Amino acid sequence: MTENSPVTPLSGPTVPDPHHSRYAARTTAMVPSEIRDLFAANGNPDVISLAAGMPELGALPLDTLSAQVAQIVANDGLTALQYGPAQGLPPLREQICDVMALEGIRAHPDDVVVTVGSQMGLDLVTRLFCDPGDVVVAEGPSYLGALGSFAAYQAQVVQVPMDGHGLVPEGLRAALRQARETGRRVKLLYTIPNFHNPTGVTLAVERRAEILELCRAHGVLVIEDNPYGLLGFNGQTYPALHSLDPDNVVHLGTFSKTLAPGLRVGWVLAPPTVREKLVLATETATLCPPTLSQTVVSHYLGAHDWQGQIKIFRENYQERRDAMLRALKAHLPPGCTWTRPDGGFYVWVTVPEGVDTRALLPRALAAGVAYASGTGFSVDGSGHRHLRLSYCYPTPERIREGVRRLASVLESEGERARPAAGAVTPHHGQGRSRTA
Amino acid sequence: MTENSPVTPLSGPTVPDPHHSRYAARTTAMVPSEIRDLFAANGNPDVISLAAGMPELGALPLDTLSAQVAQIVANDGLTALQYGPAQGLPPLREQICDVMALEGIRAHPDDVVVTVGSQMGLDLVTRLFCDPGDVVVAEGPSYLGALGSFAAYQAQVVQVPMDGHGLVPEGLRAALRQARETGRRVKLLYTIPNFHNPTGVTLAVERRAEILELCRAHGVLVIEDNPYGLLGFNGQTYPALHSLDPDNVVHLGTFSKTLAPGLRVGWVLAPPTVREKLVLATETATLCPPTLSQTVVSHYLGAHDWQGQIKIFRENYQERRDAMLRALKAHLPPGCTWTRPDGGFYVWVTVPEGVDTRALLPRALAAGVAYASGTGFSVDGSGHRHLRLSYCYPTPERIREGVRRLASVLESEGERARPAAGAVTPHHGQGRSRTA
Repeated sequence: MTENSPVTPLSGPTVPDPHHSRYAARTTAMVPSEIRDLFAANGNPDVISLAAGMPELGALPLDTLSAQVAQIVANDGLTALQYGPAQGLPPLREQICDVMALEGIRAHPDDVVVTVGSQMGLDLVTRLFCDPGDVVVAEGPSYLGALGSFAAYQAQVVQVPMDGHGLVPEGLRAALRQARETGRRVKLLYTIPNFHNPTGVTLAVERRAEILELCRAHGVLVIEDNPYGLLGFNGQTYPALHSLDPDNVVHLGTFSKTLAPGLRVGWVLAPPTVREKLVLATETATLCPPTLSQTVVSHYLGAHDWQGQIKIFRENYQERRDAMLRALKAHLPPGCTWTRPDGGFYVWVTVPEGVDTRALLPRALAAGVAYASGTGFSVDGSGHRHLRLSYCYPTPERIREGVRRLASVLESEGERARPAAGAVTPHHGQGRSRTA
Repeated sequence: MTENSPVTPLSGPTVPDPHHSRYAARTTAMVPSEIRDLFAANGNPDVISLAAGMPELGALPLDTLSAQVAQIVANDGLTALQYGPAQGLPPLREQICDVMALEGIRAHPDDVVVTVGSQMGLDLVTRLFCDPGDVVVAEGPSYLGALGSFAAYQAQVVQVPMDGHGLVPEGLRAALRQARETGRRVKLLYTIPNFHNPTGVTLAVERRAEILELCRAHGVLVIEDNPYGLLGFNGQTYPALHSLDPDNVVHLGTFSKTLAPGLRVGWVLAPPTVREKLVLATETATLCPPTLSQTVVSHYLGAHDWQGQIKIFRENYQERRDAMLRALKAHLPPGCTWTRPDGGFYVWVTVPEGVDTRALLPRALAAGVAYASGTGFSVDGSGHRHLRLSYCYPTPERIREGVRRLASVLESEGERARPAAGAVTPHHGQGRSRTA
């Protein structure tokens, strides 16, 4: 396990800051994420981005949505453009329960709070529970938007190892034991059980009860972040952690990956007493979630074959996953390994020793491909031997070409790195076997 | 001036909370606002609500908006429904500069951050600057959504008196002096200079420079919350505080009152170094503001006579303001006084000594009228002799009838209260003159 420490900002203010001495202590932990710069790279058509986790929306029924939204504004505009309840629109909260039922969750609409994307849910749950110095346990690596929220509330993140079956219960047990021994309070376990970001790995069903039991025993609340649960390529779903222990799990969901992220409609399902406080927190944060967006989602769910639409999205992503895995196998140099996700958006690549994925990124960009360095997903700046590839957005053709470019950068870096790693014949490295 | 102290929640959890011992310290300060219960009263058709501050949207060009949004989704759906930049869409940020120019602000789009309503801007600025125990100076009374954000970050609010010309500079000076003498750090002045919520009062132009100078001298950043600035009934605007001291003022704006709140599009204009941190904070809070909403606002501003539309809104509100002032004059019992706003949404009423507006509220609701008790706008629970009336939403007819109902409740309460207030002839109060 690893712990967080100050991270060097990639880019800081370029002028002296006259307000410097006025900021809150938490603000010093707010540094630009590495992904941010990569989103910027998206604008460059010469760079194939395998970095950003944007959904591919090409299969959306835009004509249907266009007609629906026109009707909403013309007929119900005075309601759809007005303030709404802080908790979210009641009909939408009912429909969200139907969506969650696909993963075994039995929920009451009263316990659903609509948020501005699930990021807001995560941010507000952290606000409710984390005092400065409280510990949040998370997978190592983990979603960087979550790490950002934990940092903003000055929580200390302890990352525990994953393997091909997700979070390792023994690692969790050790982290909880060590926190107890050192007198630190673990408030939350943050986990993405399905098609994890960034690794693509799914938490084995047989581990779920054990992890929940461990958290219960240690008085730790579980935050289940589930943006990809309905994007399993065989159409299979896994029992949500919430379905196994509803009183000790806060479940985060979103329409960003199953409909459209630009609407910014996510939700939190929480035990009633937590939900009550969460509604107060949403009032403070934004008064209420966007009424028009909520109405669009609700009409869409009510009038469109949304499950059929998710199937189309799944098939598109599966085709891209396949393209990426084939290209990785065909092109990546020896010594590289990668995960084989059954759903979601991401493949996690491990590169040979001596290669530093963060240091390599500028050269990759110059070669016309972007990825997310593994360092962004850890709180201690580790992850140099990993990188995240997203297959969600580019076409299969662009994916193949992107992987080809990545492979050639890795290959030449491997040639540079090998002698340094051995540090024996520094000036004759080019003579060593490429299969070493 | 008054300071905040624990406030008794109006309604607490109804079941024991198994998570009780896990919450962050800040969460104990999150209590339901009084206004919240009043929004609930909105659903009752027998109650005329003079409480809630919802804009009246009847004059919106719904057909135009419907056609625009249909076109956006059909033609630009893949962009308008996708994630966007955390800072907001560049064309919208340019247009926001044009909107602010109407109040004398010269801004660069780079320094504008789009937020999910200005509430989010306020919440994030507080997040950036306030450590627990830091002091925020605000008008007394002040907007309760702001008081909620300050409480959520454990800031201590010091309210300074207002008169008919807004915040009293002498009161501010005294508050700043006292904070310095008691070793407390004042981080922010929070002010609504134009058509203030809840009082309807506008800060006199000749006071603005003085207040800005005081804040500068004491190292206090000014937060200018300006939702109503373009709703002056003569069409007049006042020089924004930002226009007078751009380096030490953070300006909050919104389209909630000049277009539609259900889109949840507001903004913050901040000095560059603060703006940089604010963008990081928005990423943590919601990743990005709703792209569809932003696109709708941008198309509307680009293709519609938005200034003409604001004029229509202004005229509607002026008609309602007139109806309310006339009704107050005709019906309110002697001893009541009230403000005469030149814009915005609110009238602030002072009731005779002995009347408690919070205690009276259930009787008012039973009589078919809702108002916001003055107690909700102060941090120390004072304000019992005040109430806020909103004329923004109900029709002039409903306003007249609502004021009539309020008057009769106040009148009978006055008859009850008078003997107790005098405490001389407790059983003969009904014989006293009504003009006392």
